[in-house]
Amino acid sequence: MTELTYDLAVLGTGSGGEVVAAEVARAGGTVVAVDAGRVGGECPYVACVPSKALLLAAREHVLIGGEHAKAFAKAVRRRDTAARERDDSGAVRRLQDEGVQIVRGRGLLEGRAGGRADADLVVVVGERRLRASAVVVGTGSEPVRPPIEGLDDVPTWTSEQALSSPERPKRLAILGGGAVGCELAQVYASFGTGVVLLEAAPRLLAGEPGFVGERLAAALRELGVDVRLGAKVTSAGRHGGRVRLQLDGEAGVIVDRVLVATGRRPRSADLGLETVGVRPGDTGALAVDARCRVLASDASPVAGLFAVGDVTGIAPYTHTATYQGRIVAAHLLGGGRDADYSGVPRAVYTHPAVFGVGESAEAARARGVHALVEGVELADTARGFLAGAAGGRLELVVDASTGALLGASAIGPDADSWMGELALAVRARLDVRLLADQVHAFPAWSEAIQPVAARLGARVDSQGDHAIGPA
Amino acid sequence: MTELTYDLAVLGTGSGGEVVAAEVARAGGTVVAVDAGRVGGECPYVACVPSKALLLAAREHVLIGGEHAKAFAKAVRRRDTAARERDDSGAVRRLQDEGVQIVRGRGLLEGRAGGRADADLVVVVGERRLRASAVVVGTGSEPVRPPIEGLDDVPTWTSEQALSSPERPKRLAILGGGAVGCELAQVYASFGTGVVLLEAAPRLLAGEPGFVGERLAAALRELGVDVRLGAKVTSAGRHGGRVRLQLDGEAGVIVDRVLVATGRRPRSADLGLETVGVRPGDTGALAVDARCRVLASDASPVAGLFAVGDVTGIAPYTHTATYQGRIVAAHLLGGGRDADYSGVPRAVYTHPAVFGVGESAEAARARGVHALVEGVELADTARGFLAGAAGGRLELVVDASTGALLGASAIGPDADSWMGELALAVRARLDVRLLADQVHAFPAWSEAIQPVAARLGARVDSQGDHAIGPA
Repeated sequence: MTELTYDLAVLGTGSGGEVVAAEVARAGGTVVAVDAGRVGGECPYVACVPSKALLLAAREHVLIGGEHAKAFAKAVRRRDTAARERDDSGAVRRLQDEGVQIVRGRGLLEGRAGGRADADLVVVVGERRLRASAVVVGTGSEPVRPPIEGLDDVPTWTSEQALSSPERPKRLAILGGGAVGCELAQVYASFGTGVVLLEAAPRLLAGEPGFVGERLAAALRELGVDVRLGAKVTSAGRHGGRVRLQLDGEAGVIVDRVLVATGRRPRSADLGLETVGVRPGDTGALAVDARCRVLASDASPVAGLFAVGDVTGIAPYTHTATYQGRIVAAHLLGGGRDADYSGVPRAVYTHPAVFGVGESAEAARARGVHALVEGVELADTARGFLAGAAGGRLELVVDASTGALLGASAIGPDADSWMGELALAVRARLDVRLLADQVHAFPAWSEAIQPVAARLGARVDSQGDHAIGPA
Repeated sequence: MTELTYDLAVLGTGSGGEVVAAEVARAGGTVVAVDAGRVGGECPYVACVPSKALLLAAREHVLIGGEHAKAFAKAVRRRDTAARERDDSGAVRRLQDEGVQIVRGRGLLEGRAGGRADADLVVVVGERRLRASAVVVGTGSEPVRPPIEGLDDVPTWTSEQALSSPERPKRLAILGGGAVGCELAQVYASFGTGVVLLEAAPRLLAGEPGFVGERLAAALRELGVDVRLGAKVTSAGRHGGRVRLQLDGEAGVIVDRVLVATGRRPRSADLGLETVGVRPGDTGALAVDARCRVLASDASPVAGLFAVGDVTGIAPYTHTATYQGRIVAAHLLGGGRDADYSGVPRAVYTHPAVFGVGESAEAARARGVHALVEGVELADTARGFLAGAAGGRLELVVDASTGALLGASAIGPDADSWMGELALAVRARLDVRLLADQVHAFPAWSEAIQPVAARLGARVDSQGDHAIGPA
């Protein structure tokens, strides 16, 4: 067995691992990156990037019109080009250009060299032993398959498979009304597929305030999607050449394909974590501290062991992974700072788009904060009047005692763009009265912010007279 | 002559005057609003609103394609609907519903009642004398006509006339490459008019950093606009049924119509300001303090006299006027605060859009600040890769000694939306290192901000080692 020693070994080269590897190598560290799959993770090949390419193409198709089959074929080409034909050689080259050594294979932690508590960590990949003073786990997440009877016997897709396939089903059932389910419902419905979107919860995007899911459901229905809320699929089976899904308490649905988008789970099994005293929680997530150091069962950080991205279970987005990658790189390079997740955005790239940041009023109240909420219809802004506001709405959540903006949620055109201002405001703990005094360009979407902030500011000034307190 | 007494008289009911009138009336004050033109000013009828409606229609036409004449006719209908057919009855009703009395006519200040220094101000409108303890001047601005020989003898348009006309000239010369000239060049060129855009300065949008105007010129040229920079029109004359513009040092141009968009001037003449000791400056602007109180020739505020909007010459945008309206209303209602213009955005709604806020590096250096500049191509972001970045670029300006963000400029898709974050950052005097630590949604346009902020933060941290100091 070959043994090699590095400053840093990265297990998993998704968005987070890639950033740490590149930054540490650029600063002169010796770095090895281990991945059994594509270098670059899932985002560029089978997740965010191809789905966003399809969403853009779908939106243009709806605007421009034309034949569905032809437009879909063109969209698939655009998707696959954006996904670099699922070829990771560019990502490999970029890392190698930074000086990172790439090892293809499954990496397994094997404790510390010589078993000494202060020694390097050891990662085994096939015939190689890689010693490193720091190891970053960035193994991502994997789709959760719901325990539905018969599901294994019918043609299903994961989102990864959907985003790699040229097929445009005649009828498609999507299980799960989270971000992925909603985005792909919009894509396929835009290209003429009959989509039925099945969500067990009483609303879409269950993590966002109620108005968001309700309005997104309305927009998807307008596009022709059959949105079924509170829908429990009890079994699946063949039905001629098609698929029949049985629902609890309502008529079943017959489709040609089932897309399973019922969530993901941190990929933390079979990594040898137990050799360094780490046991993932029930969700599979690796607990980390503010420097992304992995915590052992006794909640103390394991020397030299870090985790970034979906495997931490903190906020399963590419941008969280990238951010955590920067946090770890800064820590390793001596300019460390604590991660602050307060301003991490939650964006859904449907049309209308969805953007959320920070806390809901309910969450704030649950921790005893006197939270105030106000909102505005985007149709009541000049931009909405000019461009159409597609059922858009913005709501802000403020701490009545301090005036600090705690959270913001919106659905509406371009919400992924103009809501960035509110993410920054949450992160910088800005007072809503400053927001109320900020000048927004006429007629930009962000003009919606001012009247809401002004009303909240007045309520804070009046010391929360009219405020709704914790339940 | 009838004499009536009010708490507030507003001269000019544009965006600023309208806000003060409505807010004071809503709070129970007696308010009279005087306007010789349309209630609501120019923005809703013959300026921002119709031009933005046309820009949206033009963009859709370019995307969707189709016959120019038909698409233009449809765009003109959309424009005129957005401009409420230039009928101000809705605005009148809105103000009246708040309890504002509207007087049609020219208002003239006539000093103070009885000539006593502590008495009400007096405004005369025809046969009426209006006494008020506060008067707000919101008379706006008017187009400046350049002194070009023969210009009065050829068919010209002001932007107001262009935005009211159904005509689509075969060939159109636009004098002036500011925001209005660039926006209307894009509109007409999109609908097939042969546009020649003549700007005397060496670049378009002379108030923004060089890269902005250069890239906008490239985008307009790609659309077919003949952009001529450093172009001096020396004379205009009839040429058959058409117009010939003579240029200094280059071949003339022959067009069917000339749109004059060479800037505007505060409308402060013939208002009787001298009766209260006020003399507008050379630019025509009324000097005001941070509460929008008009300053007399001796720089002391004139009791009870305020000005808002273009007539103050501060930042000639609807959103500045509205903001100043809120500042005056708050002052009159006892909750006064000083205006802060640091975060006032400058948006141009072309495609690519332009957005600027705060100071340029040159301006900061001129006042002795050690200013650092960094930028990024929007094509280097994930969103640019997915959606096309249309020559987009972002630049940030930072104070090397404090890290504070001083200014930001961008050109690129949706810059009017996603740059709001930077306007807030300038207004809130946020440190660029906080911006560098802010998480942006993948793949949103605002991801461009992070690497620029990070580079600037590193330069600030290294105490400006590599910084370019004041010249």
